[in-house]
Amino acid sequence: MIQKLKYIFSPKSVAIVGASETPNKVGNVILRNFLDNKFSGKVYPVNPKYGKLFGLRCYAKLAEIEGKVDCVIIATPAETVPDIVEECVAKKVGGVVILSGGFEEVKRNDLSDRIKEIAKKNDLPIIGPNCLGVFNPYSKVDSIFLPMYKLERPKPGKIAFITQSGAVGSTVMDLAAYYGIGISKFISYGNATVLDESDYLEYLMHDRETEIIILYMEGAKDGRKLLEQMKKVNKVKPIIALKAGKGAGGAAAARSHTGNIAGSYLAYNAAFKQAKVTEADGIIEIFDFVKIFDQPKPKGNRIGIITNGGGIGVLTTDYIENEGLKLAQFSEETKKELAKILPTYGTVNNPLDLVADAGIEAYNKAIEAMMKDPNIDALIIIVLTQTPPIDERIIHVLTKASDDRRKPIATISIGGSYTETYRKILESKGVPSYNSPQAAVRAMERLVTYANYLNRLKK
Amino acid sequence: MIQKLKYIFSPKSVAIVGASETPNKVGNVILRNFLDNKFSGKVYPVNPKYGKLFGLRCYAKLAEIEGKVDCVIIATPAETVPDIVEECVAKKVGGVVILSGGFEEVKRNDLSDRIKEIAKKNDLPIIGPNCLGVFNPYSKVDSIFLPMYKLERPKPGKIAFITQSGAVGSTVMDLAAYYGIGISKFISYGNATVLDESDYLEYLMHDRETEIIILYMEGAKDGRKLLEQMKKVNKVKPIIALKAGKGAGGAAAARSHTGNIAGSYLAYNAAFKQAKVTEADGIIEIFDFVKIFDQPKPKGNRIGIITNGGGIGVLTTDYIENEGLKLAQFSEETKKELAKILPTYGTVNNPLDLVADAGIEAYNKAIEAMMKDPNIDALIIIVLTQTPPIDERIIHVLTKASDDRRKPIATISIGGSYTETYRKILESKGVPSYNSPQAAVRAMERLVTYANYLNRLKK
Repeated sequence: MIQKLKYIFSPKSVAIVGASETPNKVGNVILRNFLDNKFSGKVYPVNPKYGKLFGLRCYAKLAEIEGKVDCVIIATPAETVPDIVEECVAKKVGGVVILSGGFEEVKRNDLSDRIKEIAKKNDLPIIGPNCLGVFNPYSKVDSIFLPMYKLERPKPGKIAFITQSGAVGSTVMDLAAYYGIGISKFISYGNATVLDESDYLEYLMHDRETEIIILYMEGAKDGRKLLEQMKKVNKVKPIIALKAGKGAGGAAAARSHTGNIAGSYLAYNAAFKQAKVTEADGIIEIFDFVKIFDQPKPKGNRIGIITNGGGIGVLTTDYIENEGLKLAQFSEETKKELAKILPTYGTVNNPLDLVADAGIEAYNKAIEAMMKDPNIDALIIIVLTQTPPIDERIIHVLTKASDDRRKPIATISIGGSYTETYRKILESKGVPSYNSPQAAVRAMERLVTYANYLNRLKK
Repeated sequence: MIQKLKYIFSPKSVAIVGASETPNKVGNVILRNFLDNKFSGKVYPVNPKYGKLFGLRCYAKLAEIEGKVDCVIIATPAETVPDIVEECVAKKVGGVVILSGGFEEVKRNDLSDRIKEIAKKNDLPIIGPNCLGVFNPYSKVDSIFLPMYKLERPKPGKIAFITQSGAVGSTVMDLAAYYGIGISKFISYGNATVLDESDYLEYLMHDRETEIIILYMEGAKDGRKLLEQMKKVNKVKPIIALKAGKGAGGAAAARSHTGNIAGSYLAYNAAFKQAKVTEADGIIEIFDFVKIFDQPKPKGNRIGIITNGGGIGVLTTDYIENEGLKLAQFSEETKKELAKILPTYGTVNNPLDLVADAGIEAYNKAIEAMMKDPNIDALIIIVLTQTPPIDERIIHVLTKASDDRRKPIATISIGGSYTETYRKILESKGVPSYNSPQAAVRAMERLVTYANYLNRLKK
């Protein structure tokens, strides 16, 4: 069943059941997605109300469609869904996405049980119900029923995102687009009636476009299966997980949300630890972590810090110590190199304070010296863009450092419009940029820990 | 000496020693600040190199100035500073700001000892050295030597900011401008040679324009004095503190930064706790906290949550429980009111999930019901702007709730460009807006704790 997900993610033909001409209705937004995104395959609107929709023939039933249908997206009321799934079987479709809500989450298990039965019997992969479905920027499949002017779609990339919640999923998509982070696959799976997070992990492990996997979940149907699956996949591709519904109140909220039992958070936390999965503590932190996982893996935890603002260097050092990383001790050669860059009254310390007079060249030389030093495993580079000598050329220096691939880097810049514009340029060039020392250091620590895990596996 | 700080913050005349015509030099940027900001008092450039500067007469020495000089800003090399301070005494100036570095932080205590001696003997208030000095948007005094196109200046407001680090200070100013948060006074005090953070707290306690005080420090010269001062001031105006140089490495970095001994973090942490000062864990968190301290004080810790995205409601609930706040139990009347708003399949829970179909009116009614309910002390309102029914009118609804003043509110919206634009409008209207449930809940918890402290004081 899992291999058949390809019919959903990269279909040659898609039928939209519940297609509509009413603006902002789910069946309208999705149809527009396929048309506006210039999906290269066939698109079949299905709705007995219309003869034509946006110039396309609209079918009364799936059975009327003459050609083959790889993927069916259903956006009709819950009561109608089981019969439509039966029609999908008759039509021999490859896979189904059910967006409609009104199943387990409102105790209509009768409906979801029927869907499950049909799917199992006929080996039919079904995503949902009660979800946003899928987005694949490569194939242009997009069942996210939120208008593009409000929710930007990210560019193609290597990060896959599996989410139980549509709301969390949509905000993550929007943030990814905002930050310029590329996505390989987006899966909002809602109630997980047929396929669950473990199945999607399996699929993505073999997906060529995916290198990093983000998982947001409230409750797994099968905790044991999830643990084993995470163990297997995380060795090949890092998983960054966010678990919601941690306490009693949160668990109750989760139950009425996707009909799933959130389960003991302690059990999940233990499972993440056992599988060495990187756990995030919020949506923003997912991005903090994802950005740095694209950097080369460090050999250890000894960090070199460069700054042009003393106070931010002090704050960064605090987090380094707090997170269990180490301030690197520079080699004698490095110290000599760095002394040449500093003003006469400066002293070579870690953090290396280039002071506010520091220009592009000082950064360039300091980075090069630290890249060469075998006593340093990773670099944190603080650039306060407010000082006069810092101009656009620093972007080139940092991009070069990020592309260097000898050691991972994280950059920190804090400020207003000018700084934010600069940070977005860095992000678009794949340079991890943070607006807080805490975020940068936490992310670096997670990368160090994961790299350490992979190293131990090799031994 | 402290009362005399008024000569620095609201001077009728300012002399800039080290004024320069070279772009980007400290003495150039500051002079331009006063001219470009249309400072209403007199401005006297002082530098023997020039006869005129930007059309103004440039003086060779302070003594040559005929009129009275309230405030002198010094931006000349460290060695020249003690003599210039002597000239300030002779000229009977009201107060001095020394921007120059090269004193305790590079072990030139001989220079700073002389400055201290002169100041004490003559009751002359001195800010600095090794700092960015002061900014007062009301009087237009601005000694921040970073160009305005790179570092925006915040609008006038009620938040004062005392910072030991210039770099941290400048990023905070820039962020305040970016978020549209108003500032009453900015004090970057560097080495604290004459006046220290305790003195500035004293000054700001009596400052009419200041209602909330932010304090960033690495190490206090006199910990006992600081504790007593914090205790006194925090009862009148809330203090939000960020301490850097927490561990051994951070403390060493702090020492070479402003020449101050950072001291044991445990002692500071205990002092903050004893004085009931709100401690932030980073620069961004300062803003998270500041925003909500302008809301009315809650009577307790029972939170009502409204959302149009289930998953974000679940995440928010997790943080509520984690931070020790409570989910409010709605009164029977509230439950009846809320049931009318929900779709037929919805159930009245806390978080109240209005689901993605929720429009402006549903929010309006839900907020009103919760404002009336005596079982709810504060509201957290999640608005995912990506859903079709949410439009600009929601800004009016949330501004009304924020201006209502019966209960404090925090709003959460997460997303890309569309959402960020919307959040900035909310911020500019004084509505606390967060892009993460964690940040919103942590901020609300701090407000609850501070309100609780004030309530106990009254008893």
